[in-house]
Amino acid sequence: MNQKNNDFSKIMLERRSVRHYDETFKIPHDEMLEMIQEAITAPSSVNLQPWRFVVVESDEMKAKLKPLIRFNTLQNETSSAMVLIFGDMRCHDRGEEIYDLAVEQGKMPSDVRDEQLAAIIPYYENFSKEKMTSVVTIDASLAAMQFMLVARTHGYETNPIGGFEEDLLAEAVGLDKDQYLPVMIISVGKAMTDGYESSRLDASDVTTFK
Amino acid sequence: MNQKNNDFSKIMLERRSVRHYDETFKIPHDEMLEMIQEAITAPSSVNLQPWRFVVVESDEMKAKLKPLIRFNTLQNETSSAMVLIFGDMRCHDRGEEIYDLAVEQGKMPSDVRDEQLAAIIPYYENFSKEKMTSVVTIDASLAAMQFMLVARTHGYETNPIGGFEEDLLAEAVGLDKDQYLPVMIISVGKAMTDGYESSRLDASDVTTFK
Repeated sequence: MNQKNNDFSKIMLERRSVRHYDETFKIPHDEMLEMIQEAITAPSSVNLQPWRFVVVESDEMKAKLKPLIRFNTLQNETSSAMVLIFGDMRCHDRGEEIYDLAVEQGKMPSDVRDEQLAAIIPYYENFSKEKMTSVVTIDASLAAMQFMLVARTHGYETNPIGGFEEDLLAEAVGLDKDQYLPVMIISVGKAMTDGYESSRLDASDVTTFK
Repeated sequence: MNQKNNDFSKIMLERRSVRHYDETFKIPHDEMLEMIQEAITAPSSVNLQPWRFVVVESDEMKAKLKPLIRFNTLQNETSSAMVLIFGDMRCHDRGEEIYDLAVEQGKMPSDVRDEQLAAIIPYYENFSKEKMTSVVTIDASLAAMQFMLVARTHGYETNPIGGFEEDLLAEAVGLDKDQYLPVMIISVGKAMTDGYESSRLDASDVTTFK
């Protein structure tokens, strides 16, 4: 890992949403891919990895994004990139590729692959749109959380953005909106200002033991 | 933090799903609450923190859970706890409490609180069921991911479980199923076996730069 900080407590507990970044700085593509590779160690339902990332960094694409992200314009203008995370509603189309890779890497015997694929693919094919939406939203969110933490290990800060025009985002970046469900936008870059601290309810107020 | 490990890379990159735990070991309630408190440093949409945790650890409640979790019986039988994470579809009912807390803790001026609440509460009241489902699913998933990482800092392992009877889970633990949307179950405990390694697609296969 191309890391600046490996202190888990500091990374997690001192993460803040940062809206203003050094606009002169771009994260190199190889480092962005390294960060995404680390983030997608997140688990996903039957390992189908439905997360898809669109890294918006050009002035042209940022201009296209601007009307779709409401009041989050400072992040768009100054971040190294706006990382759009989509859930692929056809993720099971890559099931064979994923399970073949596991066999190739010696992580799964081929008969287990065959058995599991034979169960998983028809199971996913039969999901309602509502169920598939839930699965890809959860999985993409897990990777999104890891991405925000990974960014900090690389010396960057983030802001998760949920307020955007859901119906228009996929097509704005050239994706089929029926296949790719937008889950979150994360701005990322070198912080120019500190983020605000925010409060949390006490764990005992949101937890019951049974 | 009551930590055994603070190495971010090891915590994140070496997390595996573990299904078999030391069934003689229970995580003390104060440590469980500490882990949840750390996990809920996750961000949430306008900080409404819709995550709700039900920590199932008694034999009686585990027996009730058993028919609802399909093939995940080993985790249920041997884990310290099955942590059920719900999204509260009425999370905005606690908006005032949360924003008051921020003012009290000196993290927000009172006029900002008043302005933001006046905007947020009616905005959330107007969400469609579909939109609210999406928001609470994302937010609860972010906390779920942090919980899985936090557990490892405490020397425990986890398994995220998505396959369960969604329609029956809330009522099984005494919650109103119209208000509490089940998002994920995470088994947690002291590992008895290593988890399997799993493969990931290359970041470059799930990423485009624009």
